Amino acid sequence: MAEINPYLSNLSKKYLFPLIEERLHDLLLKEPNADVIRLGVGDIALPLCQSIVEGIKQAADEMGTNPHGYGPCNGFSILRERIAKLEYTSFGISSDEIFISDGINADVCAARELFARNQKIGIIDPAYPLYLDLTRSIDNSEITLIPLLEENGFLPIPPATGLNLVYLCSPHNPTGTAMTRENLSLWVNWALKHQAILFFDAAYQAFITDNDIPKTIYEIEGAKKVAIEFRSFSKSAGFTGLRLGYCIVPFELQASGFPLNPLWQKRQDIKTNGVSYISQMAGIAALSEKGLQETKEQVALYKEEGFRIKAALQAAGFTCYGGVNAPYIWVKIEGLSSWDVFDLFLYKHHILSIPGVGFGKFGEGFIRLSSFVTKDTVDKFILRIPQIKESLCELI
Amino acid sequence: MAEINPYLSNLSKKYLFPLIEERLHDLLLKEPNADVIRLGVGDIALPLCQSIVEGIKQAADEMGTNPHGYGPCNGFSILRERIAKLEYTSFGISSDEIFISDGINADVCAARELFARNQKIGIIDPAYPLYLDLTRSIDNSEITLIPLLEENGFLPIPPATGLNLVYLCSPHNPTGTAMTRENLSLWVNWALKHQAILFFDAAYQAFITDNDIPKTIYEIEGAKKVAIEFRSFSKSAGFTGLRLGYCIVPFELQASGFPLNPLWQKRQDIKTNGVSYISQMAGIAALSEKGLQETKEQVALYKEEGFRIKAALQAAGFTCYGGVNAPYIWVKIEGLSSWDVFDLFLYKHHILSIPGVGFGKFGEGFIRLSSFVTKDTVDKFILRIPQIKESLCELI
Repeated sequence: MAEINPYLSNLSKKYLFPLIEERLHDLLLKEPNADVIRLGVGDIALPLCQSIVEGIKQAADEMGTNPHGYGPCNGFSILRERIAKLEYTSFGISSDEIFISDGINADVCAARELFARNQKIGIIDPAYPLYLDLTRSIDNSEITLIPLLEENGFLPIPPATGLNLVYLCSPHNPTGTAMTRENLSLWVNWALKHQAILFFDAAYQAFITDNDIPKTIYEIEGAKKVAIEFRSFSKSAGFTGLRLGYCIVPFELQASGFPLNPLWQKRQDIKTNGVSYISQMAGIAALSEKGLQETKEQVALYKEEGFRIKAALQAAGFTCYGGVNAPYIWVKIEGLSSWDVFDLFLYKHHILSIPGVGFGKFGEGFIRLSSFVTKDTVDKFILRIPQIKESLCELI
Repeated sequence: MAEINPYLSNLSKKYLFPLIEERLHDLLLKEPNADVIRLGVGDIALPLCQSIVEGIKQAADEMGTNPHGYGPCNGFSILRERIAKLEYTSFGISSDEIFISDGINADVCAARELFARNQKIGIIDPAYPLYLDLTRSIDNSEITLIPLLEENGFLPIPPATGLNLVYLCSPHNPTGTAMTRENLSLWVNWALKHQAILFFDAAYQAFITDNDIPKTIYEIEGAKKVAIEFRSFSKSAGFTGLRLGYCIVPFELQASGFPLNPLWQKRQDIKTNGVSYISQMAGIAALSEKGLQETKEQVALYKEEGFRIKAALQAAGFTCYGGVNAPYIWVKIEGLSSWDVFDLFLYKHHILSIPGVGFGKFGEGFIRLSSFVTKDTVDKFILRIPQIKESLCELI
């Protein structure tokens, strides 16, 4: 008799994002005409840039003229070389240390497969739910939550003892805080000391504008010996619907004396057939001169809306974090659980947020608002702030 | 200290397809002008059909006009409904039992995650190398090879005792043989008796033309209780470079009393962000009236080339199998190892094949030729048959 994976089947809690969708669906059943302001899931609000659209159409014509079949399972070298040149060469990372994928989710899951079961695993909390749910779906690994607390400026502090694998994210989803150079150095040195591997999720790096915030972990001395970095076109170029990401597995990176770059390659050879030619050509278009200009303008627009959301909330007396080097605003609301705040925002004010506790227990007392929105949406949101304020005052 | 996955790191053998590529590369270094006839990897030889190209371009324009971000992680319902209507409704399978993915590789890997470690696993041999390498990369599961032998017409015979999970493939890669209704019924009944789960890889179903060969395992009574079926647009519509597939996880399917459809959904919720909008819209275009007509014509062209390869080899006295309901011809060559034949074909005659033993020990003595080729390629191949024959006679 086939036996079920007990770790996956025991994950009783529904995954966060479908849960949010269900509540939204529930509202829209009751009030089909509700004008919902969507500040929930961090999904794009602007269409794809024209240079990318043109890149896709050109790639489609190429596929209609000549056969373009299986590509290399780690991605086309022209794309990897472009990424290396733009982002990594200055830190000593070459195109052969870059692996193209259909997004960070896939890479985070793939990374875990390189390591043995029952590792000591550190996971920041609050965090994107994948890290914890993935870990729990596999085995009984001992999990150490690394709290991101208001009093520490939401910066993770390395534990006193060693761990095997640690999930970090900067700029951080959901708190919108970016790890400083000092904080990141602390982690790299800690990992070197304990021979731990850092999984560094840099999905939101395009939103960094402070010069003293590292855009890649490889800016830190020694990081190539301890870190796998995950990147995506989703938030930098609006690819959530196109699916393109990549990860960096440096040649210097080893675990138990085993080099990880060829091991990753072996895993890819066996398990993948590469990423859509169209998505890769779209990625190349996004990294062209015109593409870079257009996508930077989009990121700037999102950032501007984030500033406006944050400023309006702060003007109304709310305590807010993030929204500077990241597309998320982390709003503190005391006296109510974050699910209660979520429900109040949704059912009474027709504003979709994400409850902080959905990202982990240390997210309780906060909600996350996304700045992946247009100006009109923020205009409407700002108009609703006085009513939100009023309902909160009544309840607390 | 982070510990490496010992099962993955111990997979010492290089994966088959990169190995083939290396030898080809080796030849082209020595003889840059060699006119290589590529009958190796089963990759497309014709450009994408026009209806699909148009579908992609239209989808790109849509993405450039309105934001199209994250889609449902199990695929757009319009695509799932179209697949259901065309292929499955008549067997009682609905669109909610269909999960869209970026290809069968991903789904085969995902399927394994639903089950516990250390299962008794049956794997047909010869077979697509993923089944065995995936299994070995995870744990120490007891593996029972199920030989596909010439004397049984390459049909797999269920073992006397039970197993937990079994990998089957029909039409079969690499032997090109399709499981008969009787053979498939034998397996479904065996699985029902032993409460085993069948992983049924139907990547090549579009090549079935015999009416008495089942195109889906769900044509067999009881299969919905025991089988997950994998399908792809790669070989039916030339999507090897576009990445689109799907699998069927029936509502009736259970393991250890646990329904697998919601478990698959849970896995997808956690681990995936859906498939490229472009690829899914391309899939919808491929399933339009015009798309179906165009893709059927392509499949017919490939089949025609397969017939010609097989007929020419048979006329020259070779023993050949497959090539009727599948795009592969399985050529028996006695007296030499299949790697020796591969090398002879490649280095002396500039013909790229795949050595049968690369698909498993029961593939020894055979080579696989792909019919994903154009008429010109086959014309050239046929001209080389007398010389191949001559070199083989000298050696054997």
